[in-house]
Amino acid sequence: MKNYTLISTEDLSEKGRLTMHEQLGLSGAEISFNQLPAGVNVPFIHKHKQNEEIYVILEGSGYLSIDDEVIDIKKGDVFKISPNGERCIKACEENAISFMCIQVKENSLNGFSETDGVILEEKPKF
Amino acid sequence: MKNYTLISTEDLSEKGRLTMHEQLGLSGAEISFNQLPAGVNVPFIHKHKQNEEIYVILEGSGYLSIDDEVIDIKKGDVFKISPNGERCIKACEENAISFMCIQVKENSLNGFSETDGVILEEKPKF
Repeated sequence: MKNYTLISTEDLSEKGRLTMHEQLGLSGAEISFNQLPAGVNVPFIHKHKQNEEIYVILEGSGYLSIDDEVIDIKKGDVFKISPNGERCIKACEENAISFMCIQVKENSLNGFSETDGVILEEKPKF
Repeated sequence: MKNYTLISTEDLSEKGRLTMHEQLGLSGAEISFNQLPAGVNVPFIHKHKQNEEIYVILEGSGYLSIDDEVIDIKKGDVFKISPNGERCIKACEENAISFMCIQVKENSLNGFSETDGVILEEKPKF
């Protein structure tokens, strides 16, 4: 069995909503790509039971309603929201917004990079 | 204490390497943004002990050396690599490649979206 799965898309920022968990066989995250047209918000506020979410703004700009605050967000912003954060995203009136959302279980990561990665002697097959 | 942390960057695809774990206080993932100049590859092959990695190609094109295969990769591709996969990425001779790498612990996600999210009655503060 292969150690990888791959999805090829033309442009991730132009999908209405694209979810990756099933297609890629993810076991430690759910990843979705989302687009909201100008002036449109996610139709509800939500929080989470166990998962922290990391959002990456890929295109456009808009607003994040988080608990009692509203924050301007734009392309290049990356933010983490703890499970209890009450959140909703809205696109600006002037433009759509595209973003990635990564759900992971809070406190689930043990090590990473140098403490989880193993550098090998083999040479790449390029 | 606020339920969110945010980093604002001009353009995520133009950083040499930008890591998010410390800056965002991530607890369930490490996320990095990486750029390789044209013709350049990561200087080693690596695998992982516990973590699966999800790569998102943000700009450009190149090659993934994975175990005994070499695969063409380009903007819009998303792929997951299991911990044991022996991997290395290289940019094409013609252009740089920019990609996001998300490290999460394999099999750590319990529920997601409908099974972990809680929809609230409150209205956003927009």
